Amino acid sequence: MYKFFLIMIAIGFPLSVLGSLLHWPVVMMFIIYSLTIVALASYMGRATESIAVHTGPRVGGLINATFGNAVELIIAFFALKAGLITVVLASLTGSVLGNLLLVMGLSFFVGGLKYKRQKFNVFDARHNSGLLVFAVLVAFVIPEIFAQEMGPSDTFALSVGISLILILLYLAALFFKLVTHRGVYQSSETEGAAEEHETAEWGKKKAIFILLLATLAVAYVSESLVHTFEEVGEAFGWSELFIGVIIVAIVGNAAEHASAIIMAYKNKMDIAVEIAVGSTLQIAMFVAPILVLISIFFEQQMALVFTVPELISMVTAVLLAIVISNDGETNWFEGATILAAYLIMGIGFFLL
Amino acid sequence: MYKFFLIMIAIGFPLSVLGSLLHWPVVMMFIIYSLTIVALASYMGRATESIAVHTGPRVGGLINATFGNAVELIIAFFALKAGLITVVLASLTGSVLGNLLLVMGLSFFVGGLKYKRQKFNVFDARHNSGLLVFAVLVAFVIPEIFAQEMGPSDTFALSVGISLILILLYLAALFFKLVTHRGVYQSSETEGAAEEHETAEWGKKKAIFILLLATLAVAYVSESLVHTFEEVGEAFGWSELFIGVIIVAIVGNAAEHASAIIMAYKNKMDIAVEIAVGSTLQIAMFVAPILVLISIFFEQQMALVFTVPELISMVTAVLLAIVISNDGETNWFEGATILAAYLIMGIGFFLL
Amino acid sequence: MYKFFLIMIAIGFPLSVLGSLLHWPVVMMFIIYSLTIVALASYMGRATESIAVHTGPRVGGLINATFGNAVELIIAFFALKAGLITVVLASLTGSVLGNLLLVMGLSFFVGGLKYKRQKFNVFDARHNSGLLVFAVLVAFVIPEIFAQEMGPSDTFALSVGISLILILLYLAALFFKLVTHRGVYQSSETEGAAEEHETAEWGKKKAIFILLLATLAVAYVSESLVHTFEEVGEAFGWSELFIGVIIVAIVGNAAEHASAIIMAYKNKMDIAVEIAVGSTLQIAMFVAPILVLISIFFEQQMALVFTVPELISMVTAVLLAIVISNDGETNWFEGATILAAYLIMGIGFFLL
Repeated sequence: MYKFFLIMIAIGFPLSVLGSLLHWPVVMMFIIYSLTIVALASYMGRATESIAVHTGPRVGGLINATFGNAVELIIAFFALKAGLITVVLASLTGSVLGNLLLVMGLSFFVGGLKYKRQKFNVFDARHNSGLLVFAVLVAFVIPEIFAQEMGPSDTFALSVGISLILILLYLAALFFKLVTHRGVYQSSETEGAAEEHETAEWGKKKAIFILLLATLAVAYVSESLVHTFEEVGEAFGWSELFIGVIIVAIVGNAAEHASAIIMAYKNKMDIAVEIAVGSTLQIAMFVAPILVLISIFFEQQMALVFTVPELISMVTAVLLAIVISNDGETNWFEGATILAAYLIMGIGFFLL
Repeated sequence: MYKFFLIMIAIGFPLSVLGSLLHWPVVMMFIIYSLTIVALASYMGRATESIAVHTGPRVGGLINATFGNAVELIIAFFALKAGLITVVLASLTGSVLGNLLLVMGLSFFVGGLKYKRQKFNVFDARHNSGLLVFAVLVAFVIPEIFAQEMGPSDTFALSVGISLILILLYLAALFFKLVTHRGVYQSSETEGAAEEHETAEWGKKKAIFILLLATLAVAYVSESLVHTFEEVGEAFGWSELFIGVIIVAIVGNAAEHASAIIMAYKNKMDIAVEIAVGSTLQIAMFVAPILVLISIFFEQQMALVFTVPELISMVTAVLLAIVISNDGETNWFEGATILAAYLIMGIGFFLL
Repeated sequence: MYKFFLIMIAIGFPLSVLGSLLHWPVVMMFIIYSLTIVALASYMGRATESIAVHTGPRVGGLINATFGNAVELIIAFFALKAGLITVVLASLTGSVLGNLLLVMGLSFFVGGLKYKRQKFNVFDARHNSGLLVFAVLVAFVIPEIFAQEMGPSDTFALSVGISLILILLYLAALFFKLVTHRGVYQSSETEGAAEEHETAEWGKKKAIFILLLATLAVAYVSESLVHTFEEVGEAFGWSELFIGVIIVAIVGNAAEHASAIIMAYKNKMDIAVEIAVGSTLQIAMFVAPILVLISIFFEQQMALVFTVPELISMVTAVLLAIVISNDGETNWFEGATILAAYLIMGIGFFLL
């Protein structure tokens, strides 16, 4: 399977460069860009997995989330620069929904086909639940509601304040997890699983090198991808919202998809959940506020105000994810439920 | 007490037939129909209980829920046929609120008067919580929100898509419970309770015969009942909404009320909760979507779009039920809290 | 530190009386009043703590909550009498947010700086979660939503009905806790902690005397404080909403702040949580409905209809508090998360 991806990269990346220069048809380029990113992402996933073996599940999970969202951040950066605020907010929504519902749902479902009951650290699940409620139900809902009775400059001021608080709390969460409470909540089972020796596919240095190279390539292709959205939307009858929420999120989060599902299939549910939820939190508490702050220096400021369908989708997704994952146990049906929720939202955004 | 119900049926059913033919005053007929259904439902409950003893708590719970909601489905079918979409949606809302708040609240309260602490399977509680959030917070909320920015044909298309997903997931839930994960989550306590031998009041065949006969009679009377709503509403100053949400739900769910409370009083909380929540889920994931799909062939299509008071009532009811039942333990005060919530909503719908 | 507060009272109280009589500048008086109340509240906290030692943690917690909210109730009473309904509703919102987020957040944070993991009775946490959802998500949300489609007299009728139900359930909760289920849910750990002998600072009689005296003084100063709001708002550019939600709540709840944080620092998390959540529940289930009922006799009736920002802030605060506190365990990061939510809402109300 990996050979197939290597061939896809070997063909797709030169074609991406060539097609951009020669102005090939946009819809064709959109497909080439997307497939190339997915293939590159599979290499990123593989490299990340190797690094995760070298560094242990917790740091590995963080690295997974970081490199999955580097793609997202770069795509959003260029879209923001081009003034496509609707697309940026939609792609943030899509990343939240994609990670929390699609990645987590697929992990639970695929893992559950092989194992009857899978467990993961219940303390982490609760820690993550608190942060999800904070980020989505408080930090995203409040500006939406308060903005109804505020002028645009106050709304943006509120957004900047919330963004700073989100980033500070995100850093505090890292400090909590890696310094003050490292290993405090590790259950004996989890510890056992973490200590299980596994050989990495690649050495640490080789893995890092491949990861960096693939990230650069993804960034290059992503930039070209952004500029195809408008024409592709017209060609397929897709709205900006649908492209942002569904298409960008699936392509942009392919790396998480791949590695989370692989981990679930290997019964390493701690890592799978860490990728899905950790990535959601990084989008909500780091990528989104960073983009708000960056927008201060751009022509058009981006307030943290989503459309109502976007916000309600995220809120219900968070509530569903919390209720389902809070017991630290999964099975195929929980995965199916989460995927069904994603499907409903997907149909909704398609018809909008 | 059962003799009293037998007399009620022996008097009420002939009167129902006679009164329909002779066009007796509508308000009087409304009362006769309602009492007859409640009396018939008590027989259904008794028959169901007997069958439950023969088949065990899980299948028994399913049968309970199915035959309680047969009444509901038939009433809604005739109302839908008559184009009374407001009443149908209101009666669906009422069934959700009635089962989740009134039946569960009464079960907890009555059971709690006898026993200080009652327990039920915590895995089932969590499984049900996930489905409640999925059905009500995702599948009902999303079309409401998205419909604000959609035309009616897109709204109906979304409703049909969601209905198909709901039915598929409902079937998947049955497959999960009865096939792939049968008995996997049974706690040792629960198992013990299930094995406790109890003698059924009636033989299996007799119970089934009585159940079928009573169901048919309920169906016959229900159809007549539907046609009294308008005049009764005018006579008492009740809105269509109040009739659908409160009156239809109480009459239509009398069977569940009866048998769930009996089970709670016998300290069989697993069955009581299975009836209350199972019935709620069957309404939300099976009856409601079936009605949406049936409406394709009727003159007036029914989208899955409730009024805002209906939707918010269901959402808050689900959140309250989850927070209270998630620990697998009950007492009289939890029952009182749930009943108080039902009372508040009842006053609200009455004044609306 | 207590000497400092004694000096503050010795100076502040005479100045409060003198300043009122001599009509000193309003902003100066506002500061004097506020500081005097905070200082008096510290004495109330100390007296309450002594009484709590004499009476045990549960009754002590109740007393704590009662005397903290006496201030609140008196302030709200005078504001209601003056027809300042916006300020009353805002100060109720502020008390809910202040107790649930600021007091609980500070307790968790300060306690967590000293202890890595702090525990409290998980049964109480769940009991409280159910009541919080009932009071805020059901009893506060329903009138808001239903009022959209109702006339003012129906809205007030609904408010009165809900208020009666709230008070009845509040009394039922006391009956449950103190009579039918006293000690039923006490974990062995908690019991141990409660039995740990501690010497009270003051004798029971002296503590009660000080508590009463301080309460009277607080009441006197509070009344004067209410009349400064309008001018202070103009002077600082604060809206009535911000004064009610943030300023009144911080000043009015200083007693809870002080004693809850002291308890958390002493690792008596059961009492700290009882103060924070118990006080929230008393505001929502007792103070708010009492004010609605009192308003029947005033010129202007107060319906239980908050502004949308107020309601959404309370709803999200309750969801956050439940998700974070439901496991009966805390650490500094959970405190920081809750404080961050309070800060976001504070900025929002400031900019509104």
